[in-house]
Amino acid sequence: MARAWTLVNRPEALPESSDFALRDSELPPLGDGMVHVRNRWLSVDPYMRGRMNESKSYIPPFQLGEPMDGGAVGEIVESKADGFAAGDLVSHFAGWRDEAVLPAKGLTKLPDLGVQPQDFLGNLGVPGATAWFGLLDVAKAKEGDIVFVSAAAGAVGSAVVQIAKAKGMTVIGSAGGKEKCDFVRSLGADAAIDYRSGPIIKSLGEAAPDGIDVYFDNVGGDHLDAAFARARLHARFALCGMIAGYNSREPAQFRYMIRMIAMRVTMTGFLYGDYVSRLGEFYSEMGGLMASGKVKSHETVFEGLETMPDAFLGLFTGANTGKMLVKL
Amino acid sequence: MARAWTLVNRPEALPESSDFALRDSELPPLGDGMVHVRNRWLSVDPYMRGRMNESKSYIPPFQLGEPMDGGAVGEIVESKADGFAAGDLVSHFAGWRDEAVLPAKGLTKLPDLGVQPQDFLGNLGVPGATAWFGLLDVAKAKEGDIVFVSAAAGAVGSAVVQIAKAKGMTVIGSAGGKEKCDFVRSLGADAAIDYRSGPIIKSLGEAAPDGIDVYFDNVGGDHLDAAFARARLHARFALCGMIAGYNSREPAQFRYMIRMIAMRVTMTGFLYGDYVSRLGEFYSEMGGLMASGKVKSHETVFEGLETMPDAFLGLFTGANTGKMLVKL
Repeated sequence: MARAWTLVNRPEALPESSDFALRDSELPPLGDGMVHVRNRWLSVDPYMRGRMNESKSYIPPFQLGEPMDGGAVGEIVESKADGFAAGDLVSHFAGWRDEAVLPAKGLTKLPDLGVQPQDFLGNLGVPGATAWFGLLDVAKAKEGDIVFVSAAAGAVGSAVVQIAKAKGMTVIGSAGGKEKCDFVRSLGADAAIDYRSGPIIKSLGEAAPDGIDVYFDNVGGDHLDAAFARARLHARFALCGMIAGYNSREPAQFRYMIRMIAMRVTMTGFLYGDYVSRLGEFYSEMGGLMASGKVKSHETVFEGLETMPDAFLGLFTGANTGKMLVKL
Repeated sequence: MARAWTLVNRPEALPESSDFALRDSELPPLGDGMVHVRNRWLSVDPYMRGRMNESKSYIPPFQLGEPMDGGAVGEIVESKADGFAAGDLVSHFAGWRDEAVLPAKGLTKLPDLGVQPQDFLGNLGVPGATAWFGLLDVAKAKEGDIVFVSAAAGAVGSAVVQIAKAKGMTVIGSAGGKEKCDFVRSLGADAAIDYRSGPIIKSLGEAAPDGIDVYFDNVGGDHLDAAFARARLHARFALCGMIAGYNSREPAQFRYMIRMIAMRVTMTGFLYGDYVSRLGEFYSEMGGLMASGKVKSHETVFEGLETMPDAFLGLFTGANTGKMLVKL
């Protein structure tokens, strides 16, 4: 008998533990072309909050009463699919559960890059690739640029900081609290802003007296407004997430957006999914940075399937430093 | 003795007539390389509001007590500069006054495109070039696109509507009141939205049930939020102006900006000044559209230098249809 989390209630604002239920489920028989996987690592990510709403987006909403899903790394227990054998480590999308029987075509065997398996949910997974393509392709950040990144202690943000430093940029990261700011500095950031300690617009002005060329936005809200206020000529903003608004019905307010005109700022929304065809390039370059130690992995780990909702909710209360994972 | 308008008080919100004063001024002697110009047409434009604030922007603020300036078309009365002779029509930046003695290097002789002189302040001037490059270069609008343009009855907006239709796009324009909406339809727009008659987000949804590919923003505020709400995949927004906020200290509020991520929207601020090197291309193509009758000129004309502040203030109360001009 497998166990999987299901959404039993669509949250209005910040989700609560009672919105989730852990349920037993019978595994289907192992047909041809399928594998039986035992999950080892489960991913929780801020974008999952959007899937808890009923409204359609770029990814379908979670269905009430059905098993939830998301990124996961597991080990094959039994295979009836060519190219997969018991003991293989794979990444796939049947997270939020302990075991699954899945068509092999949805699985990726982990390439041998000399890293930990869970890195394929972090710096070598969706967060790392999001950081890579958002910074270098969407925002066209280049050596010498002054880069501001919000949620810099998070999974995506901590990758942005390290990639930007490895590429010769000046980096200012924001995070909540002294401990996280220390962490952001330890990643190599030139400055860290504690957004809890005062208005971001002021702190960013002090940390970047000459303004910013690039803003990598994970937050929206007052961070984005501060970036408008400090944008230099031809600044580029990559919009990755707006966690400040995920649990809120309040509209975001902007006083400085009009500077986009005078400074000819370009702001672009993007999704990881647009870059799947370029993952080979990413594995090669990011794998190299990890092998050389220029990019390091940082994780916050919850233990046991039971902790999955707590790990998820922790994303919104600042419980994680680096990538938030659940270990089974 | 010449007469020129001067700013005597920096307005906090909507300017008032008492913020302006018409003053006599002695013309300087006509030195070598200079011309004496008698203005015939003066331009008033929304961007001038920004110059009434003290803060620095892409163009310096008006100085209290000094003559104001802006776009103008005049006739040369006397010339001590090579290439300019009495009777020549020129465009220049010494507006807000009746006469001026100017260095010839700041003047442009009007090219012979078979149009009215005042068109060089409208469809063949800054508003027309702003529409042209904003639509085609910044927003990369192309045949078949669904284009939304705000302030579509204004100088820039009316040019956007006509250029877009000439290029085979579907066009939805917004304007204030039935009369202006009729005017926008008369320009060829497929639909006109009266923003005074109800929430724009609702009207835009009805006018563009399949969403929009391009938004040409002259307004900001709720128009921009409606465009976020209705953006299709890979939509492009060109930010030209945000007149809704020029006289307000209230922050703009956005509920739908987060759709930029799911829809991979790109939003870019731009200025006419970035395209000065490409004006030849513009004169040639826009001149052709005007000669063929595909783009027509529409003006609201105030008469006499005394009316200049009223004409300017009329920009913010919806007094103009097409380009707002003062005729001397």
